[in-house]
Amino acid sequence: MKLDPIIILNEKELRENVHLDHSLIDEIEKGFIALSNKEATVPPIMMLPVPKKDGEVDIKSAFVHTMESMAVKIASGFFKNPDIGLPSQSGQMLVISTETGMLQAVLLDNGYLTQIRTAAAGAIAAKFMAKKEVSAVGVFGCGVQSRYQMEALSLVRRFDKIVMFSIDTPERKKAFVDEMKERLNVEVVIAESGEQLVSECDIVVTTTPSRKAYFSPKWLHRGLHITSMGSDAEDKQELYADVFENVDVIACDLISQSTRLGELRAPKEAGYLKDLSCVREIGDIISGRKKGRETDDQITVCDLTGVGVQDTMVAMMAYLIAKDKHIGIEIPR
Amino acid sequence: MKLDPIIILNEKELRENVHLDHSLIDEIEKGFIALSNKEATVPPIMMLPVPKKDGEVDIKSAFVHTMESMAVKIASGFFKNPDIGLPSQSGQMLVISTETGMLQAVLLDNGYLTQIRTAAAGAIAAKFMAKKEVSAVGVFGCGVQSRYQMEALSLVRRFDKIVMFSIDTPERKKAFVDEMKERLNVEVVIAESGEQLVSECDIVVTTTPSRKAYFSPKWLHRGLHITSMGSDAEDKQELYADVFENVDVIACDLISQSTRLGELRAPKEAGYLKDLSCVREIGDIISGRKKGRETDDQITVCDLTGVGVQDTMVAMMAYLIAKDKHIGIEIPR
Repeated sequence: MKLDPIIILNEKELRENVHLDHSLIDEIEKGFIALSNKEATVPPIMMLPVPKKDGEVDIKSAFVHTMESMAVKIASGFFKNPDIGLPSQSGQMLVISTETGMLQAVLLDNGYLTQIRTAAAGAIAAKFMAKKEVSAVGVFGCGVQSRYQMEALSLVRRFDKIVMFSIDTPERKKAFVDEMKERLNVEVVIAESGEQLVSECDIVVTTTPSRKAYFSPKWLHRGLHITSMGSDAEDKQELYADVFENVDVIACDLISQSTRLGELRAPKEAGYLKDLSCVREIGDIISGRKKGRETDDQITVCDLTGVGVQDTMVAMMAYLIAKDKHIGIEIPR
Repeated sequence: MKLDPIIILNEKELRENVHLDHSLIDEIEKGFIALSNKEATVPPIMMLPVPKKDGEVDIKSAFVHTMESMAVKIASGFFKNPDIGLPSQSGQMLVISTETGMLQAVLLDNGYLTQIRTAAAGAIAAKFMAKKEVSAVGVFGCGVQSRYQMEALSLVRRFDKIVMFSIDTPERKKAFVDEMKERLNVEVVIAESGEQLVSECDIVVTTTPSRKAYFSPKWLHRGLHITSMGSDAEDKQELYADVFENVDVIACDLISQSTRLGELRAPKEAGYLKDLSCVREIGDIISGRKKGRETDDQITVCDLTGVGVQDTMVAMMAYLIAKDKHIGIEIPR
């Protein structure tokens, strides 16, 4: 068998050619379905702490049984890097053939592919769980992922206003407002409080790295959908545990992970989730095996912690685009 | 800080520039010392089985605390590949900076660097544990690693004869003899039996993938050193468990791994290693904290299962050679 050359793609090429769009959402949906159908092998994350530099290298992978390639993602967070003028986050993905085990591509994305696959998951949560008709949407946090979440949401719901709340600097909040106005051509306002934000919105996305719950059950109102993106570690939390006592539908990407690292950890520990069978995985909702929202006045919540199948799906998509468009550097074997 | 470009090296460039030599042995020794000094972080291996192709992708890494880079090795074994004219084994290593977390190099070695770092470990075992003066050396197995082991041994001991025993085909045995004669300029003979081989040799290296013990305690004789390379999985074994009841010095690369996946598993289970404190790690012997061989008539054995620090050391060496010699393809960031 003649093997294709190995393709090396840099961040610029990936940003120019792989986009947060409907085809990415379709691929990520397939990944979630495989995960919930137990048609994916997802080993535990390999973590290499580097204390001398306040750093960590994390390695994630997932084999989606029906896919011809799998991704191995090596992501670094080195929090002393800004002192020497470098970004804290970096990383890349390898694309490995599941037919031969051989390397097909190196994607030098510096986290870009993770950003868009994460945003695509947020779009999927809203697509299957939010009301069809919404006017305003809200977001907690004003960082890069907050922006991608709003862009992703615009692919699945029509809205004419974004309400944002953040404890970040005025400059960063203004940058969010300006960028969102331009990119999505909607009204963008900064809320006075979290409570005010939620009261005005039918969809709320939480994308903060908070280590202390701030989203109160008192803020819940009929018809609300919450997508919770922030918590991906045992010490992170955005929603108070008793929020989950007061909602109608609870979903997440992977129950075993969300109850360990995500928003479902605190309510499980507090005894609000005694019966985990009421929690639905997003893959089961996409495939129709379980229901998402059933009526407009339900309150729904979806916790997304991020799973390796998303990496495999976005990496495979990038590889196929690169092959098709003949971009990147080809390395002979 | 200005970052160096990412370097991509292919197998040919690596074979031409990174060799099994004294400087590699020195680096691997440093890695073993760090391991035994607890100055290395070695997470569990990530394994991704791909049953549809009788395949598996394994990911290994190790952070040696004093080193400026670490390796992440992705190794594939796909045992249906020969049906389509491809090798079963493939793989590559990434070199990641432990200063910034950023990618420095991609080493497309297809297992070559693993072969030479494994051989270097065999040389180290003999260097610290075999008698100084030997005449003949023996090897069980006639594959690629058997050849590298003999080459490695020639760097640390003078010998004029190799005795080999194998159950492989006559053609492959002849190929071993011809190649070893030419490469090392010594006499090379095929033994009639394992017993005969051991009786003639002061150093014996076992490099078979055997799943059934074949090395009998009856074969042991005064002054013998055995380096056991083959066993690296729970179902592999070369030496009978009671060999360990009859030797004077027992060493290995990593006690926790050797007693789980290596030759020390069977004797531990059989009760011959009740006191693990008698087992010495090779890093402790290299650093002088523990003794190797003390007299010429002792019988010594060293089990090597392969550890991630060896990958980190050989990968870092390859990276520094490539930077120094300006080889490989440079990828702008």
